[in-house]
Amino acid sequence: MNRNEVILIGHGSGGRLTRELIDEIFVKKFDNPLLSGLHDASIIETDSEKIAFTTDSYVIDPIFFPGGNIGKLAISGTVNDLCVSGSIPKYISCGFIIEEGLPISDLENIVTSMASEAERAGVFIVAGDTKVVKRGQCDKIFINTSGIGIIPSDRLHISSGKTIQPGDKILVSGTLGDHAIAILAARENLTLDEEIQSDTAPLNKLTEAVLVHPSDLRFMRDITRGGLATILTEVCENKDFGIDVDEKNIPIRQSVKSICELYGFDPLYLANEGKMMLIVRQESENIILQRLKTEKHGVDATIIGEITISHPGKAILKSVIGGRRIIEMLSGEMLPRIC
Amino acid sequence: MNRNEVILIGHGSGGRLTRELIDEIFVKKFDNPLLSGLHDASIIETDSEKIAFTTDSYVIDPIFFPGGNIGKLAISGTVNDLCVSGSIPKYISCGFIIEEGLPISDLENIVTSMASEAERAGVFIVAGDTKVVKRGQCDKIFINTSGIGIIPSDRLHISSGKTIQPGDKILVSGTLGDHAIAILAARENLTLDEEIQSDTAPLNKLTEAVLVHPSDLRFMRDITRGGLATILTEVCENKDFGIDVDEKNIPIRQSVKSICELYGFDPLYLANEGKMMLIVRQESENIILQRLKTEKHGVDATIIGEITISHPGKAILKSVIGGRRIIEMLSGEMLPRIC
Repeated sequence: MNRNEVILIGHGSGGRLTRELIDEIFVKKFDNPLLSGLHDASIIETDSEKIAFTTDSYVIDPIFFPGGNIGKLAISGTVNDLCVSGSIPKYISCGFIIEEGLPISDLENIVTSMASEAERAGVFIVAGDTKVVKRGQCDKIFINTSGIGIIPSDRLHISSGKTIQPGDKILVSGTLGDHAIAILAARENLTLDEEIQSDTAPLNKLTEAVLVHPSDLRFMRDITRGGLATILTEVCENKDFGIDVDEKNIPIRQSVKSICELYGFDPLYLANEGKMMLIVRQESENIILQRLKTEKHGVDATIIGEITISHPGKAILKSVIGGRRIIEMLSGEMLPRIC
Repeated sequence: MNRNEVILIGHGSGGRLTRELIDEIFVKKFDNPLLSGLHDASIIETDSEKIAFTTDSYVIDPIFFPGGNIGKLAISGTVNDLCVSGSIPKYISCGFIIEEGLPISDLENIVTSMASEAERAGVFIVAGDTKVVKRGQCDKIFINTSGIGIIPSDRLHISSGKTIQPGDKILVSGTLGDHAIAILAARENLTLDEEIQSDTAPLNKLTEAVLVHPSDLRFMRDITRGGLATILTEVCENKDFGIDVDEKNIPIRQSVKSICELYGFDPLYLANEGKMMLIVRQESENIILQRLKTEKHGVDATIIGEITISHPGKAILKSVIGGRRIIEMLSGEMLPRIC
């Protein structure tokens, strides 16, 4: 990356270009141990407590979509960054950037969704800011939410993933790609046999359900921009273990598969907003799977793979037809403004 | 405000329309005691500590201006919201929304400023997020920063202002309007005899200097969008005390005054990014004034008025020529995208 380049859409993809931008600009300049961990939530140790702190800006287009809107997404997305770090989400701030001319009724509907989503997740919206720019200077509304969670001391290993070891099992909490395809369908006015709804939802009830015994869990991450593929490659990058994933066990709706084939998308790279990947102790895989399946947002949970020593640093997919391929990080951008 | 209306530029002014939007949409929907205080930083009580939490989005235009840039502003603005609440600013998150095509060199310059400003203020940037939107979907770059500060228990009265009483003195830490006029000059390509620089600066060294004995202080607020006038009206609104301010004691540069006359601006409503208003115990006015004046960002500090029982709920300005007028909250918008 050199200073003569310009920002590309792919720099916001959540994949390789985003990572380059973060490594070469942000981490280099803002260098400190808390940031260089590159977790979605940073773990802060105050004098007497450990707190998780996270931020996300939401620029999704369209702002209203099947299964949600930008406000619902802004709350659940930040709740999810907090809860997969092992923390209990508590406090949320909201920063609005609004384009002049946005109907007040749209803003009210968005804010109503935020309030009900916050209530559902048990978090309090405690700080806010509103900026208005002229027509054409932003697109309708962008929302930043930042969040604070409290981390019980027996969950500190979750965020770093430092206890991951060979033999551990990898699970996903449900079907992949619903959010991305719902947005695509809304944008392109696709008529589908079965309407696909975004999976936008707060996952903190699900993470609490699996954290009854925190030592069962090695790692969790919500599967957003960049998709499952990006998380799998990040988890084992530069590590002395690799990942084996079995494609036939990855849950994907038939309707999502069909649209992926039509558009040439790989569902492993699609964004989700109510799904997570978990790495669990081998001995705990069934109890965790059961705990996931008893929750509304975990009914389609499956075991998709395991941690292995046979190919350190690499995530390998065994395809449905039996072939094996290395999973790469997303390069470029499939669907801009997906979140 | 009804659902058939649309968002106006004035809804982002920091004045009356912003307040209406906050009261009628945000506070109504997000109702909780922490938010309805309407402070810039919310005070959160965890099991063992009290923390301040704040958020601001920065959409300033132009992104580079005399005395700073959007990155410097994004750090110091959020540091200031934290420190005037009586907290010690500690951790900052950054959310970037970038327009496709922004030169990498611009981003790098902005991020470099953020890093040096964070170092100067002694805060750590611990969480980040980057979104990229297509050309024309935002204007160059918007930055949200959220911040966490720790509040020593003997400073809890600062944020609420609940100890304010008649006889207390009102101070400002320096000249008003420099930021707004610097931005105006940059936007309009004004040629001035003396270049006016934005006062963008972190104020936490200044707040620490005056908080040696926290009981000397009743209240602090950084003077940003909406200007000194808006803070004065907010402080005494619905209270059993009022405010008297003496115009001749309000420090304003001659060059700022001249431009205000030319454009018909009232400097009391102009935005600042490195100035604060303080309310102090009558007995402590001189020691606090001295402490301010020994600091770089407080050399022009003055005592401008006092808390009075003679006109409860109203802030009244005694003008240079001797008249008296009620100070109203800003209505409409003087300079959009000033921060």
